[in-house]
Amino acid sequence: MNKKELISSIHNVIENRSKKEIVKILHNTYPVDLKEAFEEMKPQEVFNFISLMPLKNSSELFGYLDEQMQLTILDFMDRTMIKELFEKMPSDERADLFNIMSETLQDRILPILTKAEQEDIIKLSSYEENVIGSIMTSNYATLKANMNALESISYLRKIAGDIESIYETFVINENRELVGSVSLKSLIMAEPDSLIEDFMRKNPISLKASDPVEFCVKVIQDYDLLIAPVVDENNILVGIITYDDVIDVAIEEAEEDFQKMSGTSVEVSKHGNTGVLTSIKDAAISTLYKKRIYWLVILVFGNIFSSAGIAYFEDTISAYIALVFFLPLLIGSGGNAGSQSATLTVRALATGDINLKDWAGMLGKELMIATLLGLTMAFAVSFVGIFRGGYEIALVVSLSMIFIVMFGSIVGMSLPFLLSKFKLDPASASSPLITSITDAVGVLIFFSIATSILDIPA
Amino acid sequence: MNKKELISSIHNVIENRSKKEIVKILHNTYPVDLKEAFEEMKPQEVFNFISLMPLKNSSELFGYLDEQMQLTILDFMDRTMIKELFEKMPSDERADLFNIMSETLQDRILPILTKAEQEDIIKLSSYEENVIGSIMTSNYATLKANMNALESISYLRKIAGDIESIYETFVINENRELVGSVSLKSLIMAEPDSLIEDFMRKNPISLKASDPVEFCVKVIQDYDLLIAPVVDENNILVGIITYDDVIDVAIEEAEEDFQKMSGTSVEVSKHGNTGVLTSIKDAAISTLYKKRIYWLVILVFGNIFSSAGIAYFEDTISAYIALVFFLPLLIGSGGNAGSQSATLTVRALATGDINLKDWAGMLGKELMIATLLGLTMAFAVSFVGIFRGGYEIALVVSLSMIFIVMFGSIVGMSLPFLLSKFKLDPASASSPLITSITDAVGVLIFFSIATSILDIPA
Repeated sequence: MNKKELISSIHNVIENRSKKEIVKILHNTYPVDLKEAFEEMKPQEVFNFISLMPLKNSSELFGYLDEQMQLTILDFMDRTMIKELFEKMPSDERADLFNIMSETLQDRILPILTKAEQEDIIKLSSYEENVIGSIMTSNYATLKANMNALESISYLRKIAGDIESIYETFVINENRELVGSVSLKSLIMAEPDSLIEDFMRKNPISLKASDPVEFCVKVIQDYDLLIAPVVDENNILVGIITYDDVIDVAIEEAEEDFQKMSGTSVEVSKHGNTGVLTSIKDAAISTLYKKRIYWLVILVFGNIFSSAGIAYFEDTISAYIALVFFLPLLIGSGGNAGSQSATLTVRALATGDINLKDWAGMLGKELMIATLLGLTMAFAVSFVGIFRGGYEIALVVSLSMIFIVMFGSIVGMSLPFLLSKFKLDPASASSPLITSITDAVGVLIFFSIATSILDIPA
Repeated sequence: MNKKELISSIHNVIENRSKKEIVKILHNTYPVDLKEAFEEMKPQEVFNFISLMPLKNSSELFGYLDEQMQLTILDFMDRTMIKELFEKMPSDERADLFNIMSETLQDRILPILTKAEQEDIIKLSSYEENVIGSIMTSNYATLKANMNALESISYLRKIAGDIESIYETFVINENRELVGSVSLKSLIMAEPDSLIEDFMRKNPISLKASDPVEFCVKVIQDYDLLIAPVVDENNILVGIITYDDVIDVAIEEAEEDFQKMSGTSVEVSKHGNTGVLTSIKDAAISTLYKKRIYWLVILVFGNIFSSAGIAYFEDTISAYIALVFFLPLLIGSGGNAGSQSATLTVRALATGDINLKDWAGMLGKELMIATLLGLTMAFAVSFVGIFRGGYEIALVVSLSMIFIVMFGSIVGMSLPFLLSKFKLDPASASSPLITSITDAVGVLIFFSIATSILDIPA
């Protein structure tokens, strides 16, 4: 069924108010396809369709909709519908929805929920954005170590409709401490009367609710987990994270770094990712303008340092205009080498390849690489130097190239560490920033070397 | 158990040749932790330990090891061990291992395998690198539409040990065409005698074996799939892709784009990702040098165009040395605006937010944004211009700023489209490349405007 067919069968269902037909549509359509069809329908129609759906389906589907559409549809709902929806929604998505509501709406909804739901929402909403607690769900089942495989399977079968996943279940003791994990596969393969404690994985790997969201990506990837348990500081099980949350986090984190490093995101706090553009196609011109102008204007004023440097060496430049030929080349090379180092370092810090204590080691390595790069590029530029300015100028340009490339590389490598050290996001060491620093210092290096080697008339 | 304890218990097992002890270790240790322990042990020890393991475990673990370690351990194995290992390994990892072997080794191993295994390896190895076929696995079970739930569960239970996952199983007809999918959850929740065809999802979403690997990320993410079926051009089921492969692909693709865009990767073919650095901590200095010097030297020669431009305007510069003050600022701003556009466009193309046919629409949008950016920056720079050079120079600098920022933005936005059009990777539109183009053209724009506005002595 393509989108057009889907929309027309949705219209049919709304007209005939046929609940039987709706179940058929839902069974063979993915939530994301429904969401895309909704985007081309009127809000009133979407609401009519959703209110005909079985609650089990509508509460699941609701989590797939964009925030704006969720709020619009909520507007059509009466108290009873909202209450039922909130009872059935997956707990992580329910907390997200609650978080985007106006305070007035929150105050109206909270009292109609049960005590347990209120507490769950408040608990999940209380986690700072961008810690694992804020994306975990509390819709999960737990098992006890003294249950047998058969009992466990029938228990899971009974509650499967209400929880996020039954494929990995966690085992807790009487204090709700995490003691083991059991996959549905191992439950199915086990003898029916064998005890969980005899075949569960003991001391499973777990995530802390207070850890930054990025942590879950590395753990789930390295350990090939489908679901990871989340515990508090006392090893009490408080939630789960599923692989699909992790795919979303991994992609969002990467986009965030791309945007920060190209100077298209102004967010500098370490775990703030609310500013990530998810679509440049849909983004308004004013949004894109605001995202980009910030760094660009800062860098205009940053570049005043380069101008001041050049002004200081006006006499040298007047005597040897040929030096100007090499200015873009030299400062550009420093910026390029610096951007390379910065990108490699930022990503290595983001993926956990290196951490703060590796700085000294990386500095030594970077120094060696930068020296090699500088020497190679000095050699390349010396020919251009001889051709355009003669031997003396070639010497000045080659020497400058070595020091500028080394300076750019070291700054590009060290700045992300420094930002990280001060709890800022290393990705703020954007290419534009590195380029501007290298420009200003490059000017000084170049004209200082020129002034000391060349014969400047007083 | 930390790494040190793990290594010491591995040493114990090797000494006592205790198979019972080994099963206990394997049950409570994750493959990735064993792999890390192996990295600190001698190859002979690792081999001794692996040969004591039950085949089921060693064949699974083998896929987690690095290529180099796999080959080293293979060297210790006799024909029988290799044959057994190849029989039990997951099919995608077996094909990967086969691909990295020397031809001599391949020719020695192929004849000792069964006909079916030979064919499977050859089929999986025949897919081009970076299409979905090359990362899919053929270890999966299928069901028939006329089986009932109980039969299906006992069938899956029997073969669960040999296949990659039983959580989503695909239903095929007599021609092996994909007709449905069934989750283990729905099997467990269904009445034991209900038929698969009555509760399976009909026409499930599927991937094509010949599609690029990036495609699987978007499909698995949008549809929240655990496992996606892979079909050939006739809708015949040929393999499956699991969520963990997708997490790996998503992360590798993002790293590849980071490295290309900062000019630290020389690969330009669209789906080539063999050149991705996975760790800068472990990478040799010579590797990092080679990755980085390529673009840097190209750009040195690319910058000859900027130098030539400057040389052409030597008289203008001699007459107004103050123009030089603004040179780094103007060309830097163009490069910054261009890098921003390029990053946003490359990522939007990579994530499927936009595609080739959106170029005209994006161009219109970019023109508006670039005009706004240029005007704002011209305004900012006009103050610096008046202060450092007077009103005339300020006019020249402000006008140049508008055109240079517009030029940089349009090139940054269009180059990724152009590369994509010619089947090259859009990420090759790296910041260094954009910067160099903008430098050269920026010089021409700036000094042409200066020459036409200012009074140049003949």
